[in-house]
Amino acid sequence: MDIYFKFILTFGLILLAARIGGEIAERYFKQPSVIGELAAGIIISPFAIGGLLFHDPIILNFATIEGWFTETGEETGELHIMEIISEIAVICLLFVAGVETDVRAFLRQGVTGSVVAVGGVILPFILGYVVVMTLYPDVGQNGWLFMGAVLVATSIGLTVRILMEMGRLNTTEGTTILVAAVVDDIIGIVILSVVIQAAETGTLDIMHGVQIAIIGFAVWFALLMFGVRFPHLISRFILGPFKKSGTSPIFAIICGFIIAYLVTLVDLHPVVGAYVAGLMFAATPEREEIAQSTRPIMLFLAPFFFAYLGMQVDLTMFGEAKPIAVALLLIGLAIVGKMVGCYIPARVVGKLPHRSGMIVGVGMVPRGEVGLIVAGAGLLAGALGTGDVARELFGIAVLISIVTTLVTPAMLKPLFKNKGDPHPTPKLNKT
Amino acid sequence: MDIYFKFILTFGLILLAARIGGEIAERYFKQPSVIGELAAGIIISPFAIGGLLFHDPIILNFATIEGWFTETGEETGELHIMEIISEIAVICLLFVAGVETDVRAFLRQGVTGSVVAVGGVILPFILGYVVVMTLYPDVGQNGWLFMGAVLVATSIGLTVRILMEMGRLNTTEGTTILVAAVVDDIIGIVILSVVIQAAETGTLDIMHGVQIAIIGFAVWFALLMFGVRFPHLISRFILGPFKKSGTSPIFAIICGFIIAYLVTLVDLHPVVGAYVAGLMFAATPEREEIAQSTRPIMLFLAPFFFAYLGMQVDLTMFGEAKPIAVALLLIGLAIVGKMVGCYIPARVVGKLPHRSGMIVGVGMVPRGEVGLIVAGAGLLAGALGTGDVARELFGIAVLISIVTTLVTPAMLKPLFKNKGDPHPTPKLNKT
Repeated sequence: MDIYFKFILTFGLILLAARIGGEIAERYFKQPSVIGELAAGIIISPFAIGGLLFHDPIILNFATIEGWFTETGEETGELHIMEIISEIAVICLLFVAGVETDVRAFLRQGVTGSVVAVGGVILPFILGYVVVMTLYPDVGQNGWLFMGAVLVATSIGLTVRILMEMGRLNTTEGTTILVAAVVDDIIGIVILSVVIQAAETGTLDIMHGVQIAIIGFAVWFALLMFGVRFPHLISRFILGPFKKSGTSPIFAIICGFIIAYLVTLVDLHPVVGAYVAGLMFAATPEREEIAQSTRPIMLFLAPFFFAYLGMQVDLTMFGEAKPIAVALLLIGLAIVGKMVGCYIPARVVGKLPHRSGMIVGVGMVPRGEVGLIVAGAGLLAGALGTGDVARELFGIAVLISIVTTLVTPAMLKPLFKNKGDPHPTPKLNKT
Repeated sequence: MDIYFKFILTFGLILLAARIGGEIAERYFKQPSVIGELAAGIIISPFAIGGLLFHDPIILNFATIEGWFTETGEETGELHIMEIISEIAVICLLFVAGVETDVRAFLRQGVTGSVVAVGGVILPFILGYVVVMTLYPDVGQNGWLFMGAVLVATSIGLTVRILMEMGRLNTTEGTTILVAAVVDDIIGIVILSVVIQAAETGTLDIMHGVQIAIIGFAVWFALLMFGVRFPHLISRFILGPFKKSGTSPIFAIICGFIIAYLVTLVDLHPVVGAYVAGLMFAATPEREEIAQSTRPIMLFLAPFFFAYLGMQVDLTMFGEAKPIAVALLLIGLAIVGKMVGCYIPARVVGKLPHRSGMIVGVGMVPRGEVGLIVAGAGLLAGALGTGDVARELFGIAVLISIVTTLVTPAMLKPLFKNKGDPHPTPKLNKT
């Protein structure tokens, strides 16, 4: 049993550190709590005090298992056990964000958000591709493509969390970012699958990518439209049976998990599915009740996700000069490329004022876990080559993901500051 | 990534089945929802439709990993990944139960509950030991002791859940059961560690057991007394810093996880720690707020624990005649032994009326996961011998644990029926 107790301790310690970090960030630095959670993760990571205090493969560590499932003998490769809880946490976050989104406002920003996403894809991709091609000519096209893909990724989780904390989810900027983040995820997955296929087969099959994009978008949009058109059916047949026992909000979030999985069958990321599930319930009359009862679940689990993300940062990476210089350059381009690429369409197509355009641009900056996933997939697919260069590029990709995530809250908050009365979402339902 | 998606699906499907099963039990069979959750688990288990629908080591399966942690190469033995979430779920359940317990009433039943626990230990232990000694003379003393220990175990989770659902947590019977279940857990751990040591070293060291009991009880009671005596300190120094951000209930449940782990250092079960953590916050003025905000988390996760418990049942076990006959005999003795062993002290020492004594007796019947843990420990320690007999006894122990758990809700509900107006705890806080 001891081994399970260690996992309980790790779960508890990560949440504890995250909550304390979040509180310190909010109170003493006037920053969104998510930045404190990320920082807490960095501090307790196995590369920092987690590794110093506990010499244990489980306690405040990644508990990476390379093993097999005894019953069938099927090989699993590598499995990070706490990652499962981290996934559950981010699904809860996006589901609640979906429920709290104003669906009609979301739909109104459909065109603007999509154009913003495309702008935010093209510029960073080109910048990443060209810079890596120049500095690492030996890595080859697959590697350049991959680093471009890392710069494209957008972590919807972080920005959503900040928007929720500041009560800005349902502003024009908020819904534009949400639409753009969903479209960005779909484009990002397309690039990723094209590049993985290129790395594995040696040929660039753009048509395959387009096919994935069309299917993914169609499924996602069909789910959204079903929710918007037939809220009474959802209310009656999905929530209805659980109304008497008062558990319809619980059933709603369970459906969020099922839909989160189902969209992965068309190659979408589960968080995008969780978000559309939330949107579907957002159109029902039970919306408020669902939000009220699922928010405590989200508040309990979501910090785990961000602290666990912070734990991926290996501060000892900051050792050599060249990778750091390249990383700093790419980080700068990742920030500027995304901001400019999103700002222009937001102004031109969305007719947003300057400050709103800035909010949209900055809101799309964090690469977060999506950047890490792309980098990890690149390493596994062998696109980054082998040996020291692969490790170097992977480290740089991780740094880009983390740093763009860390700087966003601090950049975003002042933009909201003088924009009239903020309406922070109540954190927990009081009696 | 696919492997993580499978875990998300499994998590979602288990919760989905549990909620539907729970609703059906409540609505159509007028039973506590927990019985529906257990039944749902049996139906979706890898031995039943889970195995028929998905030939997968993860989806609706135990995802047993025998592997190693890559970073240190430390061997882990066997690890059921979903078990971690199951542990998290039951810790949430017991924490919320603790918060909702009337601490003063709990303390008033201290003596009665302790005597009830002792009565409920002695009779089943003797019955189990003698019967197994008679029917399986070849297994030897360690095996007889172990089967006795299986009959001693009490699953606090199940009874607590039913008491909460029926709004009976803070009745005299409810608090007596709670005290008895805590004391029973401490005694059970003592028996288990004595028997494991006997199996491993060949000598029965009772003094070692007594030592564990004293330390475990002292730590548990010290925590409780600290909470009862100094609620203002908890309120000020633990909850205070998080009041402004409204996250003090979240911080409270996080503390529950830390305490759940800490008590395992003195060999107590984490659920006993989670319960005492809940009791500590139950004495603070923030009690209502904590209960309100942590209840949705518990309602979301707790069904996972019960459905996962149900998934352990292998219906194909019901094949041969002899083990079934022995199992039925032992199940009967497990039920009667626990009921009589608890009923008599409840009447004599606690001066409870007949029906209340029956409630206490029946409430202590379920062996649940504690029985399974004891049986598993027995198998691993080699106390049950080897080969077919070991498997047979292990199967019987599993059956005892499950059947006593399944019959309890149906036995308990009628006893509450005509006892005046029930005050069911509100399931979710409504706006």
